[in-house]
Amino acid sequence: MAKKTLRVALIGGGFMGKTHSNAYLKVAKFFKLPIEPEMTCVCDVSEPEVQAMARRWGWQTIETDWRRAVARPDIDLVDICTPNFLHREMVLAAAAAGKMIYCEKPLAMNVAEAREMLAAARKARVRHFMTFNYRRCPAVALARQIVEEGRLGRLYHVRACYLQDWIMDPEFPLVWRLKKEVSGSGAHGDINAHSIDLARYITGEEFVEVSGLVETFIKERPLGQMTGQGLQAARSRKKGRVTVDDAALFLARMTGGALASFMATRFAAGRRNHNSIEIYGSKGSLLFDFERMNELEFYSADDPAHLQGFRKILATDPPHPYMDAWWPGGHGVGYEHGFINNLADICRAVAAKSEFHPDFEDGLRCQEVLDAVITSAKERRWVKISEMK
Amino acid sequence: MAKKTLRVALIGGGFMGKTHSNAYLKVAKFFKLPIEPEMTCVCDVSEPEVQAMARRWGWQTIETDWRRAVARPDIDLVDICTPNFLHREMVLAAAAAGKMIYCEKPLAMNVAEAREMLAAARKARVRHFMTFNYRRCPAVALARQIVEEGRLGRLYHVRACYLQDWIMDPEFPLVWRLKKEVSGSGAHGDINAHSIDLARYITGEEFVEVSGLVETFIKERPLGQMTGQGLQAARSRKKGRVTVDDAALFLARMTGGALASFMATRFAAGRRNHNSIEIYGSKGSLLFDFERMNELEFYSADDPAHLQGFRKILATDPPHPYMDAWWPGGHGVGYEHGFINNLADICRAVAAKSEFHPDFEDGLRCQEVLDAVITSAKERRWVKISEMK
Amino acid sequence: MAKKTLRVALIGGGFMGKTHSNAYLKVAKFFKLPIEPEMTCVCDVSEPEVQAMARRWGWQTIETDWRRAVARPDIDLVDICTPNFLHREMVLAAAAAGKMIYCEKPLAMNVAEAREMLAAARKARVRHFMTFNYRRCPAVALARQIVEEGRLGRLYHVRACYLQDWIMDPEFPLVWRLKKEVSGSGAHGDINAHSIDLARYITGEEFVEVSGLVETFIKERPLGQMTGQGLQAARSRKKGRVTVDDAALFLARMTGGALASFMATRFAAGRRNHNSIEIYGSKGSLLFDFERMNELEFYSADDPAHLQGFRKILATDPPHPYMDAWWPGGHGVGYEHGFINNLADICRAVAAKSEFHPDFEDGLRCQEVLDAVITSAKERRWVKISEMK
Amino acid sequence: MAKKTLRVALIGGGFMGKTHSNAYLKVAKFFKLPIEPEMTCVCDVSEPEVQAMARRWGWQTIETDWRRAVARPDIDLVDICTPNFLHREMVLAAAAAGKMIYCEKPLAMNVAEAREMLAAARKARVRHFMTFNYRRCPAVALARQIVEEGRLGRLYHVRACYLQDWIMDPEFPLVWRLKKEVSGSGAHGDINAHSIDLARYITGEEFVEVSGLVETFIKERPLGQMTGQGLQAARSRKKGRVTVDDAALFLARMTGGALASFMATRFAAGRRNHNSIEIYGSKGSLLFDFERMNELEFYSADDPAHLQGFRKILATDPPHPYMDAWWPGGHGVGYEHGFINNLADICRAVAAKSEFHPDFEDGLRCQEVLDAVITSAKERRWVKISEMK
Repeated sequence: MAKKTLRVALIGGGFMGKTHSNAYLKVAKFFKLPIEPEMTCVCDVSEPEVQAMARRWGWQTIETDWRRAVARPDIDLVDICTPNFLHREMVLAAAAAGKMIYCEKPLAMNVAEAREMLAAARKARVRHFMTFNYRRCPAVALARQIVEEGRLGRLYHVRACYLQDWIMDPEFPLVWRLKKEVSGSGAHGDINAHSIDLARYITGEEFVEVSGLVETFIKERPLGQMTGQGLQAARSRKKGRVTVDDAALFLARMTGGALASFMATRFAAGRRNHNSIEIYGSKGSLLFDFERMNELEFYSADDPAHLQGFRKILATDPPHPYMDAWWPGGHGVGYEHGFINNLADICRAVAAKSEFHPDFEDGLRCQEVLDAVITSAKERRWVKISEMK
Repeated sequence: MAKKTLRVALIGGGFMGKTHSNAYLKVAKFFKLPIEPEMTCVCDVSEPEVQAMARRWGWQTIETDWRRAVARPDIDLVDICTPNFLHREMVLAAAAAGKMIYCEKPLAMNVAEAREMLAAARKARVRHFMTFNYRRCPAVALARQIVEEGRLGRLYHVRACYLQDWIMDPEFPLVWRLKKEVSGSGAHGDINAHSIDLARYITGEEFVEVSGLVETFIKERPLGQMTGQGLQAARSRKKGRVTVDDAALFLARMTGGALASFMATRFAAGRRNHNSIEIYGSKGSLLFDFERMNELEFYSADDPAHLQGFRKILATDPPHPYMDAWWPGGHGVGYEHGFINNLADICRAVAAKSEFHPDFEDGLRCQEVLDAVITSAKERRWVKISEMK
Repeated sequence: MAKKTLRVALIGGGFMGKTHSNAYLKVAKFFKLPIEPEMTCVCDVSEPEVQAMARRWGWQTIETDWRRAVARPDIDLVDICTPNFLHREMVLAAAAAGKMIYCEKPLAMNVAEAREMLAAARKARVRHFMTFNYRRCPAVALARQIVEEGRLGRLYHVRACYLQDWIMDPEFPLVWRLKKEVSGSGAHGDINAHSIDLARYITGEEFVEVSGLVETFIKERPLGQMTGQGLQAARSRKKGRVTVDDAALFLARMTGGALASFMATRFAAGRRNHNSIEIYGSKGSLLFDFERMNELEFYSADDPAHLQGFRKILATDPPHPYMDAWWPGGHGVGYEHGFINNLADICRAVAAKSEFHPDFEDGLRCQEVLDAVITSAKERRWVKISEMK
Repeated sequence: MAKKTLRVALIGGGFMGKTHSNAYLKVAKFFKLPIEPEMTCVCDVSEPEVQAMARRWGWQTIETDWRRAVARPDIDLVDICTPNFLHREMVLAAAAAGKMIYCEKPLAMNVAEAREMLAAARKARVRHFMTFNYRRCPAVALARQIVEEGRLGRLYHVRACYLQDWIMDPEFPLVWRLKKEVSGSGAHGDINAHSIDLARYITGEEFVEVSGLVETFIKERPLGQMTGQGLQAARSRKKGRVTVDDAALFLARMTGGALASFMATRFAAGRRNHNSIEIYGSKGSLLFDFERMNELEFYSADDPAHLQGFRKILATDPPHPYMDAWWPGGHGVGYEHGFINNLADICRAVAAKSEFHPDFEDGLRCQEVLDAVITSAKERRWVKISEMK
């Protein structure tokens, strides 16, 4: 067919690979796109598993060696959904092969890696994209729009937290997310990364300096691994050392003068995925909580005095970002839609050769903040983001 | 391939056809099914439109005459997503052709039709399924489970409403949903039908008698029609008479002695899709609101006195119905997932030859209540459901 | 002292007498009043108890015969806080004695009584006041103001409920509120009366016709009585017949064409005092729930499309009704403040000889609706309010 | 009269003096107390104003020189409601006079003062009490009870904020609360003090170390002063320098190993008095927000897996702390009730010669944390609370 497609090689068949497969499958069903993704190749180490995955999702071919997948001439975009420690190598190879690169967050294990990866992509003049899926919740994109419309005025405060409770049981096993050499960090890189990105995205400001602390509450756990579905896991009797943080908190100053507070933890009983951010400005405020992802609360100091209050916007109507592609007003969307919306934006940006965020530079900016917090916690002092450069 | 599939002919390419296509596309990606649906044929009157739809969603073939679609030997299941006035004829034909039938709600234009359709399906010994998608929200299925576990005791009250506001503008056009000859009724059949079904499903009880009133606030509207996306519509300058209700309220008694209250309207400003139901029993209570569809509130009188309160269950974890097929805890689902979950249950029921609800009998029960309310409103008296039989 | 006071005789030393005593004690501490109440006399049948009450609250004198209290020349206002069956006789006597009268709701046992009482007060040309305390919640008074400002447009719907659960235990005794000869009715007169009054007050409309049903779930209970504190009660082993309703539901049409739905029950597990009302109009909507009495939710269709949503107004700031008399913004008030605010308004109306609502006419209007619902439930038909006249 | 009373001299006729007067007036009306307060003397500098206050509230006598009030032999308890810089001198004098002392928070301008005041009270062997009124919200006292019952297990996190917006307008004048020499600090001492105390009270733990930052967003303001009512103020054209913080954020470690986060600001648009605290433990969690002060949210990991969720306890029933003194279940209380409940506890502790908290030691502990945060912010490092000793 005449229509140009974006031929994708997806690397990584775990939970995130499934999320991306679903996005490739659905995006052109709901969005009218100038260029559509083609599910050309899926790659993971186990042949039977990657076979099953290809069959299930409709991937046309498989690979078990990611270097082969990256090198294939019939691939336009390499999509990296592997554990964090593999991102760097794959990005460098994909850039060298002249492919567009789509990488899951966090971009890298540390700032040095992230800077190298961004440089490689730039040098190779390949396009680079990231997910940070929460940016593409309609309610969050609306928050960004409201800030851009100037409805918040000067920003005074950001207050964010990302609270979970899935590893509170001391018998939950030592999965890869709890090993520093594989994941880089724990709650910090996994979920604080999201909060940092949301703060940057919604406010349009950068971080100036941070002061943080990190903690590992449960120091040893049974060996074990994630199983197919979500956050479930299998465990053995042997124990191993947890080498990442269970919780990471920090304070920050933003470039516009706002004071900010962040807290990420996997030890907040009752909070399944409480990704919440509050933005306070001189003219208005915004509240978002992913557990009620279809809602955005907005306060405007411009309302008549006796009518002021946080209004709960059900961000599911056609005037709201992305929602003209989905269902009628009031018919909410779910977790997966952030990924699909992100992919639609990527397709459009590729076709239009227009700017796209988040890209590797956003990934690097996020990594700088993450690393600065770790340094701050270790040295028990404020750390300027510029020290990371 | 050896694996048996369920070969589907979908009739109707509108909003509901899209919702079902999405379900067929996704169900086997997330659920492990003993029998999978095959998107064999899609049918609608306009050839170019049905062509486009087939291309977009991956339907293998098209038809423009529904009688041909129904008659095809390569079809196992006929899925009816057309406006309500066409349901009867299609069901009768499908039954005559010995096909399994999957019909959108409301089943029929009135009780007489519904009874005829059920009888036809029974006589032909074909399986019959309906949607009532809200039954398959995980939070609603959990509500049913909690009642079945006996945690509510004797039921005293059902309080339901389904509030929308999409036609409040008097210039919103006279789309098919506002014409009695096409849709049968307005808010009543469209959304009260959902509340009636939810009440039957969650409580496990039937209606005994009803007293209701219906009203049309805006009597005339510009001619016009729904456009592709959701509830948007185009309009002309000519006006026509609105022949359905804008709002329908009723009181009821249930077989277990509970008193119930229902209200459906398209004139509740600010309520986009406020499908809410409250169940009060001697030992506990339940609250559900589709605008926060991932949540169920549950009160237990068995809790210690000082700790009693409605607990907000985020029904997104593996112990909750359907959620082991989806995402990790706290990663909510959306409107479309009800349809996919329903389809998974249909596939399983077909494979296991086991009972499935809602079927046409559920559709008939619902229709009896709908009609009884209309009769009650007309005759300004209480009407027993048994009068409808 | 030069300043004129309003010399009060309070009749009835139960829960409501305590609530009113508190209001007399506090009103002039917070409000600047042109005329202040004086706690001249308290009256109840038991001398030791009324002595104790006078001592505790600072009532200057006591009476044990209410006819003496009413007749005293040093009394300006007779405040009636007794069980409902005594209201009529006391009002007639107070009117005959030329006293201003302040009567708790519901005004009477039935419409005939209420009409007689209003006529007596009018004939005697004495001022008459009622409580309906929820009118004086700042958030409710704000709701009325918003309607008066025209921000809701044409009203389409009222949806109210008043749900409690304090007698769900079948062993809760047969207190006076469960005896028809003392209280007139059950949940209906006790709490539906509040919802009816709120609907009239906020909308400014009257009821046209109603269709209702009432039910008594627990037919027999141990004999017993309320004890001093709140809703607690003592019980004996003997049983008696419950002669009032446990729940009363009705539908209604309002003079402006709105359709309305009401539900009052003492059998809604987990609902301690869920007095909730929703008003939907062509331009906006309002939501109130007494369990969050400091909040009012307001939706305006005039907001920009992408910013529309129910805004939660914390009605605790000086621009909100009554709040300049109380605490700083965000420092909420409680149940008792409705009574104090009402009393402040009475004092001002007396001084200014200005109109005051709710008065006995409001009490009569409410009674007409209450009685019409009972008639409707008995005769199983719609009843026009005009039939009550 | 035979009954012993607690004869009170109240110093300070501002907003807080009014709050305390209300408590003295009401406490014995609602609580059965072994010893009741007597409103013996009120003291402030302006004779006409203190006269008016005595008349309004029923104070028996007045003083305009606080030293005379403290010295009076007919006084048992000196209640200090003046601006913070006066606390020390008054406490020392009251202790020297052998009076019981009741002091508003924060206790002192700094740790040195607080330590001196506590030592003076101890040396004089006089009883000392403080307010921290939020401890006496029924919902907060219930939170403490739940922790004491062991329902939270090991505590992992405290997340608190106290957000207001009453001085966001740059034209809001330089009232005493914005001058360091009068108030000691800004949002920090005024509202962080409450959060610190709540964290200590509910968890039963102490602070180990802190890292904080403070900021003044608006550096200059018109001169002016608070007017009688709440947070309203009058202003002149001249400007002066703001010498206190507008916002203060800090992180902390608690003695039990919990990580904690605090944020106090007067620059959070839309937050009128958002005093919120979240406690996360290994077995359960608690959420409180003063803007919904009658509610406490509690999560228990002991609930069956499919029923887990935060339950919203309406802390207004007799089983809840203090509520047997107030209204029936579901009839909420307001801001002022915390002060009345606190006073009831003081009266009981005096009669029983039993322990009472918060006392000056609690005030000192709070001050240590406050000062440590200031030091930390100045020196940009973690500060151990033990450094303050």
